[in-house]
Amino acid sequence: MERLRSFVESRRVERVIMMLIIVNAVTLGLETVPAAMARFGPLLLAVDKAILAVFTLEIAARLAVHRLRFFTNAWNVFDFVVVAIALVPATGAFSVLRALRVLRLLRLVTIVPSLKRVVGAMVGALPGMGSVIVLLTLVFYVFSVMATKLFGASFPDWFGSIPASGYTLFQVMTLESWSMGIVRPVMEVYPYAWAFFVPFIVVTTFTVLNLFIGIVVSAMQAVHEEEAKREREAERQADQAASADAAANAVQEGNAVLVEEIRALRREVSELRGSLSGKRDVA
Amino acid sequence: MERLRSFVESRRVERVIMMLIIVNAVTLGLETVPAAMARFGPLLLAVDKAILAVFTLEIAARLAVHRLRFFTNAWNVFDFVVVAIALVPATGAFSVLRALRVLRLLRLVTIVPSLKRVVGAMVGALPGMGSVIVLLTLVFYVFSVMATKLFGASFPDWFGSIPASGYTLFQVMTLESWSMGIVRPVMEVYPYAWAFFVPFIVVTTFTVLNLFIGIVVSAMQAVHEEEAKREREAERQADQAASADAAANAVQEGNAVLVEEIRALRREVSELRGSLSGKRDVA
Amino acid sequence: MERLRSFVESRRVERVIMMLIIVNAVTLGLETVPAAMARFGPLLLAVDKAILAVFTLEIAARLAVHRLRFFTNAWNVFDFVVVAIALVPATGAFSVLRALRVLRLLRLVTIVPSLKRVVGAMVGALPGMGSVIVLLTLVFYVFSVMATKLFGASFPDWFGSIPASGYTLFQVMTLESWSMGIVRPVMEVYPYAWAFFVPFIVVTTFTVLNLFIGIVVSAMQAVHEEEAKREREAERQADQAASADAAANAVQEGNAVLVEEIRALRREVSELRGSLSGKRDVA
Amino acid sequence: MERLRSFVESRRVERVIMMLIIVNAVTLGLETVPAAMARFGPLLLAVDKAILAVFTLEIAARLAVHRLRFFTNAWNVFDFVVVAIALVPATGAFSVLRALRVLRLLRLVTIVPSLKRVVGAMVGALPGMGSVIVLLTLVFYVFSVMATKLFGASFPDWFGSIPASGYTLFQVMTLESWSMGIVRPVMEVYPYAWAFFVPFIVVTTFTVLNLFIGIVVSAMQAVHEEEAKREREAERQADQAASADAAANAVQEGNAVLVEEIRALRREVSELRGSLSGKRDVA
Repeated sequence: MERLRSFVESRRVERVIMMLIIVNAVTLGLETVPAAMARFGPLLLAVDKAILAVFTLEIAARLAVHRLRFFTNAWNVFDFVVVAIALVPATGAFSVLRALRVLRLLRLVTIVPSLKRVVGAMVGALPGMGSVIVLLTLVFYVFSVMATKLFGASFPDWFGSIPASGYTLFQVMTLESWSMGIVRPVMEVYPYAWAFFVPFIVVTTFTVLNLFIGIVVSAMQAVHEEEAKREREAERQADQAASADAAANAVQEGNAVLVEEIRALRREVSELRGSLSGKRDVA
Repeated sequence: MERLRSFVESRRVERVIMMLIIVNAVTLGLETVPAAMARFGPLLLAVDKAILAVFTLEIAARLAVHRLRFFTNAWNVFDFVVVAIALVPATGAFSVLRALRVLRLLRLVTIVPSLKRVVGAMVGALPGMGSVIVLLTLVFYVFSVMATKLFGASFPDWFGSIPASGYTLFQVMTLESWSMGIVRPVMEVYPYAWAFFVPFIVVTTFTVLNLFIGIVVSAMQAVHEEEAKREREAERQADQAASADAAANAVQEGNAVLVEEIRALRREVSELRGSLSGKRDVA
Repeated sequence: MERLRSFVESRRVERVIMMLIIVNAVTLGLETVPAAMARFGPLLLAVDKAILAVFTLEIAARLAVHRLRFFTNAWNVFDFVVVAIALVPATGAFSVLRALRVLRLLRLVTIVPSLKRVVGAMVGALPGMGSVIVLLTLVFYVFSVMATKLFGASFPDWFGSIPASGYTLFQVMTLESWSMGIVRPVMEVYPYAWAFFVPFIVVTTFTVLNLFIGIVVSAMQAVHEEEAKREREAERQADQAASADAAANAVQEGNAVLVEEIRALRREVSELRGSLSGKRDVA
Repeated sequence: MERLRSFVESRRVERVIMMLIIVNAVTLGLETVPAAMARFGPLLLAVDKAILAVFTLEIAARLAVHRLRFFTNAWNVFDFVVVAIALVPATGAFSVLRALRVLRLLRLVTIVPSLKRVVGAMVGALPGMGSVIVLLTLVFYVFSVMATKLFGASFPDWFGSIPASGYTLFQVMTLESWSMGIVRPVMEVYPYAWAFFVPFIVVTTFTVLNLFIGIVVSAMQAVHEEEAKREREAERQADQAASADAAANAVQEGNAVLVEEIRALRREVSELRGSLSGKRDVA
């Protein structure tokens, strides 16, 4: 088991998997080109199947090594899901899964450390933004219910149900054709519709701005803090050394005067002793 | 009265209100689904009415406790208004109020502390931006009057009155269909219309950018300042301690020499005294 | 002359001008409402003329006070131009000036200090961005000439001349209908047109982003620097005091030992003297 | 050879080249105006050819001076390519090169130092963003392949091949007509298409935001760091001086007491000696 673990986690296996993902990206791309399929169709599908088999074996090996702890790591769950999708028979109601098989290429993110870091940082910035995301969801829900009640009867395609209103309001929030496409036609029936949509646009774009600002700030903090800490540390050490030097210099200078005084005193005492000895000699 | 206050402000009541808001969100949502209304219509409306009654009682109790001071808090006014809307009979000219009842769900913001903080921070950033908002309003007003005078005759739908021009210019500022939808048709009648709209776009997007930058800066300041203050405080204390240590070390080292000198001097004086005593003995 | 200067620059005159601008804003707005013009038309125009007369007198008085130095201040030039526009007879080719008279309301910016500061800061951030603005102009010119040469023959409305191309490329840069409205139709004639427009979009939005970043940074610098300077100043003073205290403490502590030693030495010398005196007495 | 090098790199030659680029900008612009071509056509083309000849000579001279090292500098390669384009005979399949000749005007960037710095900074910020760019490319590729598989059959114009899907998804990412133009028509055939496009929009705009944040941060770091370093350096020196002064003062003050003590001691010893001498004299 230990040998299996060290094999699965070895850098060589990682590099092989990375190569296979890139090869798979090419074959999955070529599968959409009719001319390529006509000439190399069976080959492309065979390569695809072989790579899928390797991926399945790799995940199975990692599962065997880590057992249920395997699922405590979000990256592992991601790897498991995108490979599992490809194993489900894509027939009937599941035919859409055939397209989702391409998601397998996103495994590149879990394999390449720098991509993993970038995605991790982006996902990691979300929880700190939890309140803003809840707020945005609440605003969307309230405005969707209101839009359905207000405009649903006259514009069933856009505001016929809460999901339809939610989609239309998402479009309005991205500012896509919000006026010429949606609000101006609505205003022909409800002339005051602008009093619904303009505040919605201002509130949601302002909220999304704050969401983005929050991410900006937290990302900058993370980068800047470390940088600044290191720099100030260096400066502080230099400061301390310089300050200690200055204090030492000041003390030494001040002491020089004292030592001079004391030496003078000592000479005097010495002389005094000499004179006493001399007196004794005289005596 | 004190018991009423402590009851109304207890965490248990808060949690009940929060639950009721979420339940109400579901029932208000289901009310827009015809199939749900056909089967559970009376039940949904009854639940809605019961929850509204609870909200009314809660607001009344808080009013009884705080009296007029209740209205000095903006959050209370918000709670009062969104519940009051639901109590106005929504008939005739007020039928639009039926949709506004959904605003009641926004009470979640006043109940959940983290949402309250986020909204408070966003609203709190506005006054600091007062000048920019006044400026933006002024620019909009001036350009609306000019657009009405310049293009109103030929394009009454878009620029027929100051409010119509204001709405169209808001659309232009959001860059939605500004060229293909508005300016190119206008330019077919007034070929130099671009000289009106392009500067408007540049000025207003630049102003909005500055508005947003201001909010970014003030938000970052607030977060960063506290962080930096705490950090520097810690560093300063460490610096002071280190600096005091260094000074003490320097002084002690310097003094060691002095003390040594003085002790030597003392020994000498002591010997001198001994020799004098010896002499006296001899004498 | 001195009395005229102090009168013109007095806060009372400023406040009167401010009031007149706001009144003028209302009358200029009402002039666009046919019903208001039908009832109060002569009154509105009379008020407008009276206010314009006051503005003309004020500018004339300031010109008399400051003479040619009046034009060395950009705000004065602005005031002069927007009032002068209203005095030019708006007939024939100048009929467009009638609409430009509304620009007079922008004098509010030069009167209200906080608005003046905001606009001053925004305009003041531009020179630091000089290089980026030159770069953007160069990119626009080069792409406009290329677009005219490449697509001018087939799409004379959009790319028939350099100014037409410039306008269309400005629209593309704002992302308004760039694909469905412009590039997809162009691609039906020139299939590789995307290779011209996609890089243009990436380069110009990236450049505009950098322009905006530059403004953000310079605005933040200005605000943050002052703040940080003041804060650090306070900290430094506290540090110095603390550091001096620490040094003084250290020195005093160190000296306490020395003083103790010297006092002991002094006592010994004193005793020695006493013993000598005693000897003398004995002698 | 040395004389050629100093001539080519002299500021006078640089200024001549800069002037020629600006003149060339004018002539290339006038070439697109039919009226100007009708009157000055031969002159404009002659000037263009003359300027191109000067550019060719200049590049040739620099090539002769630096030889193959010429190509190690990216700016030189850029100069070489934009001049070389103009020398290729623009006939048949290469007729598009006639328009690319205008790129020659971008040499202004390599000649004007401030433009060179701005472009260098923007290009220099890209490598640090390498991971995000790779991630964005990966996401685009995966979604392009999926879109081709899912919607290619029904919408061949938009999603018929991977490049077509890539272009359409780029349009969707810029939010141009994404809903009214693309997704709503697609949803009429595939009602769940929103589940593909909305996540795509959220993920890619979030990723691009992070890309831009990264550039903002790195640009701000670069500017802010230097500024802050210089400022802190100045403060530190002031601090050190002040701290050394304070220590010196403290030491001097402390020493003043000591010196006083020692002098008093010295006086006492001196007196002692005097009294002894007196005694001796007496004796």
